[in-house]
Amino acid sequence: MVPIISVVGRSNSGKTTLIEKLVKELVNRGYTIATVKHDVHGFEIDREGKDSWRHKKAGASRAIISAPQKVALVCDVEGDLSLEEISDRFVADSVDILIGEGFKRGAQPKIEVFRSAAHSELLCTREDNLVAIASDRFFDLGVPCLGLDEIGALADILEEKFIKARMRERLSLRLDGKKVVLKPHIEKLLIGVIKAALACLKGCEKYKAAAINLKVT
Amino acid sequence: MVPIISVVGRSNSGKTTLIEKLVKELVNRGYTIATVKHDVHGFEIDREGKDSWRHKKAGASRAIISAPQKVALVCDVEGDLSLEEISDRFVADSVDILIGEGFKRGAQPKIEVFRSAAHSELLCTREDNLVAIASDRFFDLGVPCLGLDEIGALADILEEKFIKARMRERLSLRLDGKKVVLKPHIEKLLIGVIKAALACLKGCEKYKAAAINLKVT
Repeated sequence: MVPIISVVGRSNSGKTTLIEKLVKELVNRGYTIATVKHDVHGFEIDREGKDSWRHKKAGASRAIISAPQKVALVCDVEGDLSLEEISDRFVADSVDILIGEGFKRGAQPKIEVFRSAAHSELLCTREDNLVAIASDRFFDLGVPCLGLDEIGALADILEEKFIKARMRERLSLRLDGKKVVLKPHIEKLLIGVIKAALACLKGCEKYKAAAINLKVT
Repeated sequence: MVPIISVVGRSNSGKTTLIEKLVKELVNRGYTIATVKHDVHGFEIDREGKDSWRHKKAGASRAIISAPQKVALVCDVEGDLSLEEISDRFVADSVDILIGEGFKRGAQPKIEVFRSAAHSELLCTREDNLVAIASDRFFDLGVPCLGLDEIGALADILEEKFIKARMRERLSLRLDGKKVVLKPHIEKLLIGVIKAALACLKGCEKYKAAAINLKVT
């Protein structure tokens, strides 16, 4: 199960803008992200007259377009799904974190966005499982209250509290005693390479930790 | 694994039109359908400026819109996927049959659509795993060659050869010795009701076949 958080806030508070910045920052750090926009009014994502639109219109419960670099899908569902249901059915383990926009009533951890120009009060209270507030005003709700542009600090919170907490395999590297900080995708790659190498050795099928020391003279 | 077939044919032969009719017919018979359009040129399904488009543009590898009656998803993939890969990742067991448009090079069973006005020769040969041809001209390739409007006969082939062959639970009903033909969704519903009733009876947890006789006086 992928970690789930959502960005909530009153209308016009800047949810989408914050998510854009947060996604860019997390992608730069090497993570993969899924986003979900909650649209209570329904939507018309597919284009009238296109082949896949005609398939869906004819009654297909699930219409897919497959192109060399991406796939799009429109499918009927039985009602308004929770973030957990969306994650189960449409995300699974394909990404490092799922970020929702909206879904205020869900139980998932939340970040509230607040802009004084748009509203005078917060949407959430202490009961709403807030992990941070991004705002142009200070609020004391017992969670970090960051500025609207403090995206690095917000990404740090998500990285430490949600993304890394889930990674079951970790790799550390020291060169001449000095720790090397690895980007997540490099860490993943090295883990894969080392596990594949160990799998070729007799008696190395099962282990909980491996320590490798390489000397170069 | 859901059964997979695809509708192939040269350009402008009428693939989408045939799929529209076939989907309508199968939906009328009570089945649920997924369709996949193969788009080698890529597509722009999402609309510029919309929130989910902004999420994707910011770098999300999977952007989802969730509305009360339907869900849409756009996601990055590593290359041109086969129908089997699409089925695994985006369809699973959610429907009764998956119908592709195109995918001529795949190994899946195929229906070729042919119109004399558009072309002079078939796209497929005997080696292409054809199960039927829908055409305005007769071709002898050892498979049924139906007219372009013989949708009922085409649906019969899909129903018998693919959809029903996969249903692991079947229910038959005879009233006063006479067999009643059940629509698939009614058959599914009765199976569900009877299994739920039997699950409440001690000693009836495991069985391979159940026979129930009801007398009304």
